[in-house]
Amino acid sequence: MSKLILAINAGSSSLKFQLIEMPEEKLVTKGLIERIGLNDSIFTIEVNGEKVKDVKDIKDHEEAVNIMLDSFQKHGVINDINDIDGTGHRVVHGGETFPESALVTDKVASQIEALADLAPLHNPANLMGINAFRKLLPNIPHVAVFDTSFHQTMPESAYLYSLPYDYYKDYGIRKYGFHGTSHKYVSQRAAEMLGKPIEELRMISCHIGNGASITAIDGGESIDTSMGFTPLAGVTMGTRSGNLDPALIPFIMEKTGKTAEEVINVFNKESGLLGITGTSSDLRDIEQAANEGDERAKLALEIFASRIHKYMGTYASRMHGVDVIIFTAGVGENSDVVRARVLEGLEFMGVYWDPRKNEGLRGKEAELNYPHSPVKVLVIPTDEEVMIARDVITFGEL
Amino acid sequence: MSKLILAINAGSSSLKFQLIEMPEEKLVTKGLIERIGLNDSIFTIEVNGEKVKDVKDIKDHEEAVNIMLDSFQKHGVINDINDIDGTGHRVVHGGETFPESALVTDKVASQIEALADLAPLHNPANLMGINAFRKLLPNIPHVAVFDTSFHQTMPESAYLYSLPYDYYKDYGIRKYGFHGTSHKYVSQRAAEMLGKPIEELRMISCHIGNGASITAIDGGESIDTSMGFTPLAGVTMGTRSGNLDPALIPFIMEKTGKTAEEVINVFNKESGLLGITGTSSDLRDIEQAANEGDERAKLALEIFASRIHKYMGTYASRMHGVDVIIFTAGVGENSDVVRARVLEGLEFMGVYWDPRKNEGLRGKEAELNYPHSPVKVLVIPTDEEVMIARDVITFGEL
Repeated sequence: MSKLILAINAGSSSLKFQLIEMPEEKLVTKGLIERIGLNDSIFTIEVNGEKVKDVKDIKDHEEAVNIMLDSFQKHGVINDINDIDGTGHRVVHGGETFPESALVTDKVASQIEALADLAPLHNPANLMGINAFRKLLPNIPHVAVFDTSFHQTMPESAYLYSLPYDYYKDYGIRKYGFHGTSHKYVSQRAAEMLGKPIEELRMISCHIGNGASITAIDGGESIDTSMGFTPLAGVTMGTRSGNLDPALIPFIMEKTGKTAEEVINVFNKESGLLGITGTSSDLRDIEQAANEGDERAKLALEIFASRIHKYMGTYASRMHGVDVIIFTAGVGENSDVVRARVLEGLEFMGVYWDPRKNEGLRGKEAELNYPHSPVKVLVIPTDEEVMIARDVITFGEL
Repeated sequence: MSKLILAINAGSSSLKFQLIEMPEEKLVTKGLIERIGLNDSIFTIEVNGEKVKDVKDIKDHEEAVNIMLDSFQKHGVINDINDIDGTGHRVVHGGETFPESALVTDKVASQIEALADLAPLHNPANLMGINAFRKLLPNIPHVAVFDTSFHQTMPESAYLYSLPYDYYKDYGIRKYGFHGTSHKYVSQRAAEMLGKPIEELRMISCHIGNGASITAIDGGESIDTSMGFTPLAGVTMGTRSGNLDPALIPFIMEKTGKTAEEVINVFNKESGLLGITGTSSDLRDIEQAANEGDERAKLALEIFASRIHKYMGTYASRMHGVDVIIFTAGVGENSDVVRARVLEGLEFMGVYWDPRKNEGLRGKEAELNYPHSPVKVLVIPTDEEVMIARDVITFGEL
C-alpha cells in the first residue's frame, strides 16, 4: 500500500517541504515557509502545478507546521492529517554519532542537540523542525537524515587532518564532508543507469550548486570528499573560498583589523565567485558577463571550473582510476560551460566525451561520453527529498 | 677561466656556505656557522673531506663572514679573499618584484627589505647575510636567488585565491610557492637525463624534505604548486599541517584559548608527522616505528604519502597528462617506502615502474620506470647551491 511521506528541510526561520507518495516516489505537493518568527511570514504551496501564496505572521515552527497541515486539507491534498505516514528531516551534522539515518527518539533528539557544537547555525534549526512535527504528529515515525552520514565510510587516513592527534580525540576535529544525501542518490542512480552493480564502480560525484563538493565513491561508499570540518573547504563556491593557506587568517586579521570569526565570515559569505568578480555569486550572471567580454568574470569562471577539474585527477589517483564521473545540482545539471571545462583534457585518464551531447543540456539525465569511452560521464538531477523519503520508509519501518 | 662562487643560505642565527668552482660545478668546500649572536657559536667547515669544528662567540653575520673567509685562507682553500669571484644568496621571498634572480644593488636590497611583510622571519635574515658580504667584498657581484621566482610563471587563475579580489591588489595575497630553486634544478636535470627538450615535457616535481611541495612544470615553467601564500600550505610535512579547512582556526581558538597566531604556530611547528604521531617529525623514525607495528606511525606514513599521491592526479589533470614524475630532497631521494606509496596505482595515467629499481635506492640519480612506460619516473638529488652558483655567473655577468 502506498505511503505518504513528508520530507522537511528546516532552517532557523524557514521550512521547505515535499509530500511524496512512496514507493512510487511521486511528488504530491511541495512548498516553503519563510520568515518564521518575523513579521509578514510567507507561506507558499504548489497545488495542481500552481503556486499559492499567503502572507501572515507565523510565530514559530510549530505554528508553521500547523498552517502547512491545515493547507494540505484545505487544498484537498490530504483528507486528514492522519493520512501522513511519516516525516523525514534533513539534519546537517551527524558527527560520528550517525553513520546512517535514525528514527528520532528522545535520545536521538538530544544527540542531535549535542552536535550543535559542530554545526551551531544548522543543527538547532533542524531540530526545531523535528520537534514541531513530533509534537503535532506523535503517532508516526520521524526520521533524521544527515548530510554527513554517507561520508562516514571514509578511512581514518582520509578524514584525519595533519594536526595534533588530540585535536581529533578531544574536539572532534576531522573531515566530515557534506551533501551526502545528494552524492548517495546520484551514485545509486548512476549504477542503475549503467545497469552495473554499484560495488564494481569507482565514481567521482560533482555536486555543484551554490555550495559545491566533489566525492570519490568506491563501490558505493564515500572514501574521500572535498568539503571538510565545515562546508567552507574544498573547491571555489558561490560565496565560499574553498581551500586556502591557513596562514592567511592572522595576516588578514592584521591587515584589516577583523577578528578570526569575521575573517571566516568573509571566506564564507564574501568570497568565491562573488569575491573574485565583486558583483555576483550566481554562475549564470558570470557566464553571461564572460560572454560579453568581462575579464574578471572570465577569470572567476576559469578559477571555479579549473579547481573542480583538478579534483578529477585527484580522485582518480585516490581510486587508481575512475569508471564514472557524475554532474549534479544547479550548476552541474545546467551549465554546459562548466562541465566542458571540467572534462577538458582528461583523455589521459580515459575520459572521451561528446561536446554535442553536452551543449545546451539542462536539468535532465544524460550520458555525455562517447560509447567507446572507458569512463562514463553522466548528468543526473539530484533528488535529496526522494532519498529522505526512502530513508523514512526504511528507518521508520513503514 | 674558472670562477669561484660562494653560495650562501643565511638564517637569523646561522649561515650555510658552499664554495663552488664554475663552470665545472665542482664543490671546493662547504660549511655551517650556527648560533650567531649567541654564546658558543659553532663554526664547521669541510676540508679535504674532513669536518673541522670550532666553538667561539660570534657576535653578528659580519663577524661570521670574516671568520669564514679567514678559515678559507688558513686551510689553504683559497690564497686570497680576492680569489672569490661572486656570491649568491638564497632569499625566501621575492614577491611579484622578482620573477628571476637579481644582482644586488642598494635598490634591490631595499626591495628585499620591503618584502619582509610577506616573509617576516626569513627575508631580514637573508638580507643580513647579503649585507655582510657586500661590506666585506665590495668589488664583486652579489646575486639574490629567490625561492619564489620560478613560480612567477603561474597563470593568474592558478595563483589567485577565491577571496575578495581587493585582498590581492591591496595586500599581495596570492599563491607564491616556494622551493623554486630546487624544482627548477631537478626539472632541468630531468630533461638532460632524458635527452629531450624541456619545452616538450610535462613534469610533476616532488620536493619532499622536512618541508615538501609538489609542482606542475609544463615546458620548463611552473604552472601550479602546492605551497601557497606561505610554506604552510599543501601536503603534510614534518611539522606542518598542509591544507585544511580554514574554519578550524576560530574553532580551535575557542576550544584552546589560543590566539590566531598561536594556532598557526601549532599548524607550522606541532602538526604534520609530529602532530599525528606525537613523537617525531622525522620520517626515518616513523618508517621504523611503522615497521615495528606502531599503528599511529603507520597512520602518519599513510597520510603523508597519500596526500602526495593525490597530487599526481591533480597535476596530471592540470597539464592534461604527465611525461615525467621527479622525486627529490631528503625524503624523495631516500625513502623507497614513500616513493612506492606515491606511485601506487597510477597505471591509469601511464605510470609503470619497477619496484626492484626503487627498493633500497638512496640519494642518487635513477630512472624507476619500466622502459616501455609512457611516464618516466626519476629520482634526482637536488642541488640548490649549484643553481645559485649558475645564477651568480648569469646575473653577476661573470
